[in-house]
Amino acid sequence: MQSKNPSESRTVMTDMVLPSETNPLNNLFGGELLARMDRAASIAAGRHSRRITVTASVNHVAFNQAVPLGSVVTVEAKVSRAFNTSMEVYIDVWVEDRYNGTRSKANEAIYTFVAVDETGRPTEVPAIKPVTALETERFDAALRRKQLSLVLAGKMKPNEATELRALFMDD
Amino acid sequence: MQSKNPSESRTVMTDMVLPSETNPLNNLFGGELLARMDRAASIAAGRHSRRITVTASVNHVAFNQAVPLGSVVTVEAKVSRAFNTSMEVYIDVWVEDRYNGTRSKANEAIYTFVAVDETGRPTEVPAIKPVTALETERFDAALRRKQLSLVLAGKMKPNEATELRALFMDD
Amino acid sequence: MQSKNPSESRTVMTDMVLPSETNPLNNLFGGELLARMDRAASIAAGRHSRRITVTASVNHVAFNQAVPLGSVVTVEAKVSRAFNTSMEVYIDVWVEDRYNGTRSKANEAIYTFVAVDETGRPTEVPAIKPVTALETERFDAALRRKQLSLVLAGKMKPNEATELRALFMDD
Amino acid sequence: MQSKNPSESRTVMTDMVLPSETNPLNNLFGGELLARMDRAASIAAGRHSRRITVTASVNHVAFNQAVPLGSVVTVEAKVSRAFNTSMEVYIDVWVEDRYNGTRSKANEAIYTFVAVDETGRPTEVPAIKPVTALETERFDAALRRKQLSLVLAGKMKPNEATELRALFMDD
Amino acid sequence: MQSKNPSESRTVMTDMVLPSETNPLNNLFGGELLARMDRAASIAAGRHSRRITVTASVNHVAFNQAVPLGSVVTVEAKVSRAFNTSMEVYIDVWVEDRYNGTRSKANEAIYTFVAVDETGRPTEVPAIKPVTALETERFDAALRRKQLSLVLAGKMKPNEATELRALFMDD
Amino acid sequence: MQSKNPSESRTVMTDMVLPSETNPLNNLFGGELLARMDRAASIAAGRHSRRITVTASVNHVAFNQAVPLGSVVTVEAKVSRAFNTSMEVYIDVWVEDRYNGTRSKANEAIYTFVAVDETGRPTEVPAIKPVTALETERFDAALRRKQLSLVLAGKMKPNEATELRALFMDD
Repeated sequence: MQSKNPSESRTVMTDMVLPSETNPLNNLFGGELLARMDRAASIAAGRHSRRITVTASVNHVAFNQAVPLGSVVTVEAKVSRAFNTSMEVYIDVWVEDRYNGTRSKANEAIYTFVAVDETGRPTEVPAIKPVTALETERFDAALRRKQLSLVLAGKMKPNEATELRALFMDD
Repeated sequence: MQSKNPSESRTVMTDMVLPSETNPLNNLFGGELLARMDRAASIAAGRHSRRITVTASVNHVAFNQAVPLGSVVTVEAKVSRAFNTSMEVYIDVWVEDRYNGTRSKANEAIYTFVAVDETGRPTEVPAIKPVTALETERFDAALRRKQLSLVLAGKMKPNEATELRALFMDD
Repeated sequence: MQSKNPSESRTVMTDMVLPSETNPLNNLFGGELLARMDRAASIAAGRHSRRITVTASVNHVAFNQAVPLGSVVTVEAKVSRAFNTSMEVYIDVWVEDRYNGTRSKANEAIYTFVAVDETGRPTEVPAIKPVTALETERFDAALRRKQLSLVLAGKMKPNEATELRALFMDD
Repeated sequence: MQSKNPSESRTVMTDMVLPSETNPLNNLFGGELLARMDRAASIAAGRHSRRITVTASVNHVAFNQAVPLGSVVTVEAKVSRAFNTSMEVYIDVWVEDRYNGTRSKANEAIYTFVAVDETGRPTEVPAIKPVTALETERFDAALRRKQLSLVLAGKMKPNEATELRALFMDD
Repeated sequence: MQSKNPSESRTVMTDMVLPSETNPLNNLFGGELLARMDRAASIAAGRHSRRITVTASVNHVAFNQAVPLGSVVTVEAKVSRAFNTSMEVYIDVWVEDRYNGTRSKANEAIYTFVAVDETGRPTEVPAIKPVTALETERFDAALRRKQLSLVLAGKMKPNEATELRALFMDD
Repeated sequence: MQSKNPSESRTVMTDMVLPSETNPLNNLFGGELLARMDRAASIAAGRHSRRITVTASVNHVAFNQAVPLGSVVTVEAKVSRAFNTSMEVYIDVWVEDRYNGTRSKANEAIYTFVAVDETGRPTEVPAIKPVTALETERFDAALRRKQLSLVLAGKMKPNEATELRALFMDD
C-alpha cells in the first residue's frame, strides 16, 4: 500500500455559527464545535484511507477563544500519521473577523479514527509521508501521543514508552 | 466558599439515538456523543458553581463501543475536582440493551469548564470534597491530568510536574 | 410474567433549553417539551416492557410555568400502571434555577404507550406493583383515567365506568 | 371586542415526514407530531387573538394510526371556542397516500392557548361564533372539556360541573 | 393519462420562523426559505403525479422582503405545467403580520421536478389544464421558461426558441 | 474602494450528507443543498464586502446528479461580479466517491447577495477584477444574467438589454 502525503486528505469546512448552536453567552457551544471537528476529521480520514472510518478517540482539546454567533469558522483537518489501521487527524480551527477579514486561531484538536470494512472490522490504511516542516513535527509528536494514550489506558508500561519517557527525564 | 460533594453536581441525561445522529454504519456519530457529553457536563459544572460555565478543554476520550440507532444512552456527569475557577467533570456513558436491560459502559470522558460572570470573566468556584472511593480516585488523578495538560501546553516544565513525573520514573 | 416496580422504569432526562427550542418570548416551546416528554416516557415504557413501544395517547397536560432559555430542565418518567399491552407513564418536569439551585415543578403529564413486536402487533407487558404512597395514588387514579378515555372515545358507557361515576355522584 | 368565526383562524400545515423525525419502526415519533400540532395550533390562536400566545394545556390526544417515513401529513388547526383570555384549538391530522391520494384521518387533538401581552400577562380575546354543524358541536363540547379540566385540577367541584355531570347521570 | 387542474396539487405549508432559521439580522435565512419551498413544491409535484419526485431545477427566485423571526410564513405551491416527465411548480410565499393579520407577498419561486419510479427512472405524468386566469398566464409562461432553460443549457438553439425569441424582437 | 479578485472571497464547505438531509430515495434533498449553497455563498459575499449580506435572488439552478446518503459534498463559492451594492456569487458543487476519490461535478448555481449596514440599508461593495479565464468568462456572463433578471422582472425593456438581445439575434 503506497504512502500518502497529509495534504491528500486535507478537508476544509467553512461555515457560520448559527443561532441554534450557541450557549447563553451567545457563543458557539463547545459541543457543537466538537461535532463539526468530528465530521471534518472523519472526511479527512476517509480521504486518506478510502474506507468507512469511525471515531476511536479524541485527544486533549483546548478551547482558547470564544466564538460568537454569526462568526465564520473554518475547520481544517489533515491526517498527521497512520498506524496500521488507525489514523491520527490534526485539526486547526480559525475564526474570521467579519469586518476586517483577520483570521485568528481558535483552537487545535487531535482525533483518532479507525478504518473499517462493511462489517465494522479494522482494515489496513496507507502510511503517511510528511512533507512540510509542520507536517513532520506533527508526525513525530503523534508517536509520543500514541504512547501516552497506551500508558494512560494501561496497555503499555511507562518504561516502554521510550519517546514519552524522554520528555520527563531529559531536563 | 464551602466545599461540595461530587454527587451534588450529578447530572443524568438519558436519551435515544435518533436517526439524525447516526453515521453510514447506523451507529451514533462520535461528534454527536461529544456534544451530548458537553451539555451534560456543562449542567454538572453549573450545578457545582451556580455560574455560567464555558467549555475549556476536553481530555482524551476513547470510543470503545459502537452505539447503534435506537439505543438508549445514559450520560452521567459529576464534577471530580475544582481548581480555583475551573472544574474537571468526569463523564460516564452507558448503553442499554433494549431487550434484556443490561447496561454496558460505552465510554468515559473528562471535560474541563471555567465558571464566568456575565461579562465572561473567570470566577471562583467551591472546592470538591470526594466521598466514595471512586470519587477519591478521580479527585487524585485530576491533579496528574492538570499537570499533564500544563506540560503539553508548555505552561509547566516537566520536572515541576511532580505527580506526573512519578508515573514515568517509579517503575 | 412477573410484575415490576415503577422505579424499575424510572428515566431521567436532564438537558438545557437551547435557543432553537424557544418561542418569541424566549421561553421553551410547549411543543418541544411535549417531544422531550415523549422520548423520556418512551424509554420508561421500553424499560418496563423490554419491547418496542409506540405512543398511544397523551392525557391532559397543563403548562403552568414558562421555562426560559438556558434553563436546566429535568424530565422524569415512570410507568404508573400497565393494562395488558399498554402502559400509562407518569411524567414530572422540574426546572432548576441556575443560581440558587432551587428546583420547581414545571408540569406533570401522562402518556400511554403500547408495546409491539417487530411487526407492530401489540404484545403483553408485565403488571405494575406500586411501592411508595405516590406510586399507589397514581396507580389507583390510572384506572379512572382509563375509564374516562374509554367513555370519551365512546368505547365504554358512562354507567359502566364505576370508578369514574363515583367521582361525580359522591358529593 | 367583535366575535370571530372559527374559519378565520384556520391554519394548514402540510409537510413530509423526514428521516430525522422517525422512530425505530420508521414511523413518525409521537413527540414530533405533538410539536408540529403545537406550532400549527399556536398560529391559529395567534390569528384569532392577534396576540402572542402560549400553550396552556394539551387535552387527551389519541394516536390511532402509524405515520410512515415519507408520508405527507396535513395538520389543520382552528380555534373552537374562546374563554375570556384562553382559546381552545381543535386540530385534525390527515395522512395522505402518495400513490392514490386518499387522505385518512390520523388523529385529532385539542390544545389550549392563552393570549398574553409583551410582559406575559393574560389578555382578553374575541369570542367564537361557530358557523358549521361541526364547529357548533366542537364549540358545545369545549365547555364540557373545560369543566372536566377544572374538576381534574381540583378547581371546580364535580357537582358544579353541570354540563359534565349530565353525561354520567343521564343514562 | 387524464389531465389535471393545478388546484388538485395545491399545497399549503404555514409555519413560523423559528430562532434556528434566522441570520444575524434576525430574519429568515434565504437558504431556509429555499428548503421549505422545496418541500412544499415536492409535495405538490407528488400530488399531481402520484410518484416519487426529485428536484430538477430552481428558476430565478427573488427575495424582495425580509421575513423577521416569529413571523407566520405561508408557502403555497401548485403545479403550473407538466412536460412529459417533468413538472413546473409555481410557489407563492406570504408573510403575515401578527397583529393586524395583513398578508403581504414575500416572494415567488419556480421549481421543476421530475417524476421517477422506484429505480429513479423518469416516468410520464398527467398534463395540466389551467382553469383560472392566473393559472393560464403561468401555464403559458412556463413554455417560455422551459425554452430559456434549454437555451441557457445549450440544449436548444436560440432561433428555435420561438416563444422566447418573440420577447426580444417584438418591441 | 479597491477592486478585489474572485479568489479573495473563495469559500470551501466540505461536509457529509447526513441521514436527516435525505429524501425517500436516500439522496440529498434539493432544498438542503440549496440551504448549504446559500450559507457558503453568503460567506463568500461577506468576505468580498466585509459587510452583512442578505440573499437577494437565486438564479436557475440545475440538479443534474443525485447525491446519495454518506457522500462527501464540497460546495465552493466565489464572487463572480459586483454591481454597486450587489454581488453575484458563483457556486460549484462536487460529490466525491468515497472509495476511489473521484470528484464529479454535481451542479452549479448562481446566487445574488446585497451588502447592507446594521440598519439593513444597501451599501457599496468593491468591484471584481477577474484573473483566470474561467473567472473572466463568468464575469462577462454575469452582465447578461443581470439584464435577463431585469427584463424578466419588467425593470428593463428587452431592446435595452443589448448583451442579451445579441444572444437571440446573432444566429
